[in-house]
Amino acid sequence: MSREAPARIGDRIEDVDTPALILDLDAFEGNIKRLNGALEGRNIRVRTHAKTHKCPEIALRQIQAGAVGVCCQKVSEAEAMVEGGVNDVLVSNEVVGRQKLARLARLAKRARIGICIDHASQVPALGEAARAEGVELDVYVEIDVGAKRCGVAPGQAAAALAKAIAVMPGLRFAGLQAYQGSAQHVRTNAERKAKIDFAVEAARTTRASIEAAGISCPIVTGAGSGSFMFEAASGVYDELQPGSYIFMDADYARNEWAPPLPRFEHSLFVLATVMSRPVPGRIVVDAGLKASSVDSGLPTVWQRPGLEFVRASDEHGVIEANNGVAPPELGDKLLLVPGHCDPTVNLYDWYVGVRAGVVEVLWPITARGALG
Amino acid sequence: MSREAPARIGDRIEDVDTPALILDLDAFEGNIKRLNGALEGRNIRVRTHAKTHKCPEIALRQIQAGAVGVCCQKVSEAEAMVEGGVNDVLVSNEVVGRQKLARLARLAKRARIGICIDHASQVPALGEAARAEGVELDVYVEIDVGAKRCGVAPGQAAAALAKAIAVMPGLRFAGLQAYQGSAQHVRTNAERKAKIDFAVEAARTTRASIEAAGISCPIVTGAGSGSFMFEAASGVYDELQPGSYIFMDADYARNEWAPPLPRFEHSLFVLATVMSRPVPGRIVVDAGLKASSVDSGLPTVWQRPGLEFVRASDEHGVIEANNGVAPPELGDKLLLVPGHCDPTVNLYDWYVGVRAGVVEVLWPITARGALG
Repeated sequence: MSREAPARIGDRIEDVDTPALILDLDAFEGNIKRLNGALEGRNIRVRTHAKTHKCPEIALRQIQAGAVGVCCQKVSEAEAMVEGGVNDVLVSNEVVGRQKLARLARLAKRARIGICIDHASQVPALGEAARAEGVELDVYVEIDVGAKRCGVAPGQAAAALAKAIAVMPGLRFAGLQAYQGSAQHVRTNAERKAKIDFAVEAARTTRASIEAAGISCPIVTGAGSGSFMFEAASGVYDELQPGSYIFMDADYARNEWAPPLPRFEHSLFVLATVMSRPVPGRIVVDAGLKASSVDSGLPTVWQRPGLEFVRASDEHGVIEANNGVAPPELGDKLLLVPGHCDPTVNLYDWYVGVRAGVVEVLWPITARGALG
Repeated sequence: MSREAPARIGDRIEDVDTPALILDLDAFEGNIKRLNGALEGRNIRVRTHAKTHKCPEIALRQIQAGAVGVCCQKVSEAEAMVEGGVNDVLVSNEVVGRQKLARLARLAKRARIGICIDHASQVPALGEAARAEGVELDVYVEIDVGAKRCGVAPGQAAAALAKAIAVMPGLRFAGLQAYQGSAQHVRTNAERKAKIDFAVEAARTTRASIEAAGISCPIVTGAGSGSFMFEAASGVYDELQPGSYIFMDADYARNEWAPPLPRFEHSLFVLATVMSRPVPGRIVVDAGLKASSVDSGLPTVWQRPGLEFVRASDEHGVIEANNGVAPPELGDKLLLVPGHCDPTVNLYDWYVGVRAGVVEVLWPITARGALG
């Protein structure tokens, strides 16, 4: 059920079968440098988020560029990363269920594995899984720093959980998971910073509560591509978890990108073919909902002023030609910038890595569909 | 990169790993019977749409129940169907590009293959591909019957295209593709019927134009799950293309379902686990955007009154417990009805077919990710 790659190495981009997920290697490598450049001189760890790319080839390049390891959201994603050679993975999420915890513990025989907890009942379950495999797991307490998703309340509740972890054989209390996901796409820097200021205070008081209980709190980890410079400057966060920065997407591009945040470039595209031009001004491409996730908005047409992607159905994208621009011809190929990179990547089996118009690498997306 | 099935045959549904795509076999078989029952006594062909399920096991059961074959939207989907034993496939869509047309023509050595055209330049391209493989292709002219996507204008333009096909060696003019996709989710029967009445008239006049030119127009094909009884009663349509009826989804369920349309049942679910219960009333499950496509709305919680799925992020679904209902416990499993079945199926590698709470079959979704 895995699919063949839509290109061969050495193909020109015009000859890539569509729809295909294109990675502009210059822009991708530039984004890694931009992140490092922005953080230069700061004593802070980077643990890039692999839920964005689901690809060990990319993870290894991020680690080579300085990341301490990766985050994942699912056990099966972590398995794909370890299988691909990554030796330090934090599942920055809760994992519930005996079978999944057993798989996670088995993985800790091959790599350093971290996991989050936000409920006391998970402490003995996780301890049992770790001891059954004879491993130690890094366990982080997830606190809700304003996103209202998972996480215990900051402060005493988190400290109580940290204490339960610290005394449980098989578990190492590793610190706090303090990710403010709902801040990342808030449009202005000022509003984003205000949300992160709240998160920083929540993390600071929680660490203080834990340390007051005589427990060391080694790492406060969190942050995303839209906010990481605020966490980096906080004096509270020790580790950053940006994911989307390597790709950017149309929705992130709608954010204000101003110092201290570097401006990342689009490196991820969906290559599509014009398959119908039924009336003047309406162009239909072969990429719809199943080729570009629309949960955060439609894709945009890359570097073709006047062409607007106006509607997606399952297998079709409808583009309008406005302002008198000449519409592309039947068979022409267009690059689309996905609305949201993470779920779009999850639709594909391969990155087609392109430089100067030529396919240079084909990277398998081995954690595609790794839901469990 | 293909994933292991999340269950074994004989497992109880409670033991299926999550997220998983569950097919309620009784409801699924009931929906096939409901379609047949509604069409009983009518002399009309059914060609079910495989873009919905992407699974030859399901296609073969639809054919066994009377369908003449299946529709697909992509060459790679058609390849997966033929590979799985289906011997009659209509690609109810335009296909552009030499490599794709060559693959389509090769497929015609193993099965009866149809394809749509809406532009004169495609006639010689398709003819060349067919002759190169020594096959004949069924070619349908797609007409725009109101959806404003692909398709030539009804009437003379379509007749001219039919004529060009009819005289092209390697091609057989097979009829009209006349699908009104934008009618399917119009909420009331009356409004949907009005849109189909328009489509019927467009198809009728186009067939008349073609026949006036001395060309036989064997088949008018089209219709979807939301409208097929109107096309069936039209006296113009010869073949129906329903897809979603086997599954239903939350968005289709918002339609009015009244005679002449039968009321289909939900047979497709996403099984999810409660992975966090951070505060009273908020439940987080392990199924988000990557487990249930939200393009047509959020999933709904199945048969758990008071539980409302209120927010999806990449890997999380947030559910609120309202009206004083007791929220599910950590580790409990819930069934979700996807907002839109087609793109949700495309996220999975397996159907877990369940009857009376026990896993009876595991069907691979071999056309998952078949984008090209």
